[in-house]
Amino acid sequence: MKGYSIWHPCTQMKDHEKYPLIKIVRGKGIYLYDDKGKKYIDAISSWWVNLFGHSNERLNNALKQQVEKLEHVIFANFVHEPALELTDRLLKIAPKPLSKVFFADNGSSAVEVAMKMSFGYFKNKGELRNRFVYLDSGYHGETLGALSVCGEELYSDMYKEIMINNIRVKGPDCFRCPYGKDRDSCDAECFEFMEQALLRHKNEVCAVLIEPIVQCAGGFKIYSPKYLKKLRSLTKELGIHLIADEIAVGFGRTGKMFACEHADITPDFMSLSKGLTGGYLPLSVVLTTEEVYDAYYDDYTSLKAFLHSHSYTGNPLACAVAVEVLKMFEEENVLEKNKAKGDYLRERVMEVFADYRFCGEVRSKGFITAVELVKNRGNKEPFDWKKRIGFQIYRKAIEKGALLRNLGDIIYFMPPYVIEFDEIDRLVDIAISATVEVLGE
Amino acid sequence: MKGYSIWHPCTQMKDHEKYPLIKIVRGKGIYLYDDKGKKYIDAISSWWVNLFGHSNERLNNALKQQVEKLEHVIFANFVHEPALELTDRLLKIAPKPLSKVFFADNGSSAVEVAMKMSFGYFKNKGELRNRFVYLDSGYHGETLGALSVCGEELYSDMYKEIMINNIRVKGPDCFRCPYGKDRDSCDAECFEFMEQALLRHKNEVCAVLIEPIVQCAGGFKIYSPKYLKKLRSLTKELGIHLIADEIAVGFGRTGKMFACEHADITPDFMSLSKGLTGGYLPLSVVLTTEEVYDAYYDDYTSLKAFLHSHSYTGNPLACAVAVEVLKMFEEENVLEKNKAKGDYLRERVMEVFADYRFCGEVRSKGFITAVELVKNRGNKEPFDWKKRIGFQIYRKAIEKGALLRNLGDIIYFMPPYVIEFDEIDRLVDIAISATVEVLGE
Repeated sequence: MKGYSIWHPCTQMKDHEKYPLIKIVRGKGIYLYDDKGKKYIDAISSWWVNLFGHSNERLNNALKQQVEKLEHVIFANFVHEPALELTDRLLKIAPKPLSKVFFADNGSSAVEVAMKMSFGYFKNKGELRNRFVYLDSGYHGETLGALSVCGEELYSDMYKEIMINNIRVKGPDCFRCPYGKDRDSCDAECFEFMEQALLRHKNEVCAVLIEPIVQCAGGFKIYSPKYLKKLRSLTKELGIHLIADEIAVGFGRTGKMFACEHADITPDFMSLSKGLTGGYLPLSVVLTTEEVYDAYYDDYTSLKAFLHSHSYTGNPLACAVAVEVLKMFEEENVLEKNKAKGDYLRERVMEVFADYRFCGEVRSKGFITAVELVKNRGNKEPFDWKKRIGFQIYRKAIEKGALLRNLGDIIYFMPPYVIEFDEIDRLVDIAISATVEVLGE
Repeated sequence: MKGYSIWHPCTQMKDHEKYPLIKIVRGKGIYLYDDKGKKYIDAISSWWVNLFGHSNERLNNALKQQVEKLEHVIFANFVHEPALELTDRLLKIAPKPLSKVFFADNGSSAVEVAMKMSFGYFKNKGELRNRFVYLDSGYHGETLGALSVCGEELYSDMYKEIMINNIRVKGPDCFRCPYGKDRDSCDAECFEFMEQALLRHKNEVCAVLIEPIVQCAGGFKIYSPKYLKKLRSLTKELGIHLIADEIAVGFGRTGKMFACEHADITPDFMSLSKGLTGGYLPLSVVLTTEEVYDAYYDDYTSLKAFLHSHSYTGNPLACAVAVEVLKMFEEENVLEKNKAKGDYLRERVMEVFADYRFCGEVRSKGFITAVELVKNRGNKEPFDWKKRIGFQIYRKAIEKGALLRNLGDIIYFMPPYVIEFDEIDRLVDIAISATVEVLGE
């Protein structure tokens, strides 16, 4: 028998012949501890979910209190206090006029709910539109609907014969900007491709899906808010929905509560998950408008209802933790406090990486900082992907006590918000020394 | 503004103009308590998930202990004790040769993982097959891939223009058997449609998806194990995968731990969720074989890895509860003890419904008993669906203190296993009196 009984996600299991699985026995704050007593800084918040540290006392208590009352109840025709309070708190902080909250459980489902709702909106109004528009490097999840709007070939190409054919558009690529512009001062000239696509396909498109401000899984591509402004303006003009996938970027990751706020826009659908429960439990929501809701609101026999459900939709345990997360944002002034830490992280990374001979770019937004490593700084030529430079650095960093997962040859920093300044120093030290050990001074 | 801020799943929200949402404040054992102090028997285990009652002490403690150690960690390259123990326990009770466990979070994802794994298995071996076979009345989830193998039009028809075109086959319909046979003594003559379809499409089919023994959401259609035996035999002969969706029927619901055991077959993929955590938290797994795993096992640069992940895949909190669920099965002799209760439930329902003039059929398997109501017992003519007879009975039962959700004009009993004999009496009393109040003596 080869390897393990557990088949791990997003992993070539053969890698584990060389690198045994690491068994984590406990977590506390920004640290994970393995069964040999070694500790690791969780620099990626365990796949971008953890906000306030592992085994956080407030969140633990919220969970323990809820389980004594109600662990779960069917969410069709029934409701409970944690879902009601979570709904109120979400609508208080969400861009207007988002006013309806649909619950699901994971991120992929929250993307598919938005897609199905958009499609059904037009169908209920008697209009058949059956395609979605998405961006190069966009990532929206793993189920086949979500994957059909995924512009990151690594995940989606394998399955193209069992997915519907949506419309892929060339998106922003600011590090290698073909217009020779800068993301901080450009006019989002690259929107021209989206404009052409939407004008050409306007009658068959339900919605455009986008990760606002930062395309995360596609390589932490950070782009101008102007792109979003143009997109919102044109989709509104053409009567096409805009689905903002804030699963990775929501809840303060980019410095604002929601990344859409950087462009001061409101999408028709906003999908949220990951940080929603502070990294504790699977839960997701789709926020939408009265207008969308109304398209489904009719007598039962019209068969216009939105029939989408998951067994654990609106799970009270997950909702109770999510309520506590939003209370912490409010009571502990999180976004304001994060600012200095996010800036410090970026500055420290710039300090050690910016002049490094294999550093293509350091890019940053709020609590996300990424370093793209390249073979040639002059022409931005990447390394041969088969050398797995990023992966080697990840493995080195693990040895040195940091979980600093790579995306190709991009290494990124997305730690829990509770990281302290000296811990940022330690993390950046590990990152640069791991990099130098792999690539040389 | 119409109605509520929460848009509830699988619900025409306009129904709530007449029937306000019920706010549940706590659960204990088989009971749910609302904010007015009224209690309800949870006769459907909150969408078929709860096994050992609400706020179960053992499960509560397992959750509380785990959260003090580790609430979550990324599951790529990392592992933890609850996942390891859960894997061992699952493989101990699973049909052989299932030997690999892939973790996901909800049921739809566990179906899509199996579909993607099957498709990729053939593709990694150089063979392109891009279709799946499914049954009339089959139900496998709500994301667009899972929905594309859903034979229950109510859920899937709306979205047909944004789904791939799979192959739907006429399946067993034992209540209205066209061969005039009986499910307990037939030879699964209706398998002929499946046989024809598989022979015709054998070179393009990756897998057949099926809910073993009971098609739940499609109307609690119970069919002969002989159908499964024939299906396993032919799929093996043709080299087509069999995906057993045991999300609703697994963990003892049909009287055996897994429904496949009734036919003594082993599928290539078994998807599990719902009862896996005893009704506490979203978690799902796909069990598969060494052979499938091997098709993905290669050097990284072959790009053959199975790249599917969810943020909360393998969540330690959910795994810890699931481990406790499997311990309870083992230590408390659950399947054996359930037998008398399941029989009693069926007998009591038979006693009050079998001769009722609108009862078409009482059907039962293990801890599932369903009553199909019809306008005409002689020719089995259904009621006009627009009259919503089942829904009216559901509402009456709610008034009387039982959550006894209908599926069309089928009412069904799928209570937590901890229900006592006198509580079964009470539940059946409510069911028949609610029915008579709607339809008359």
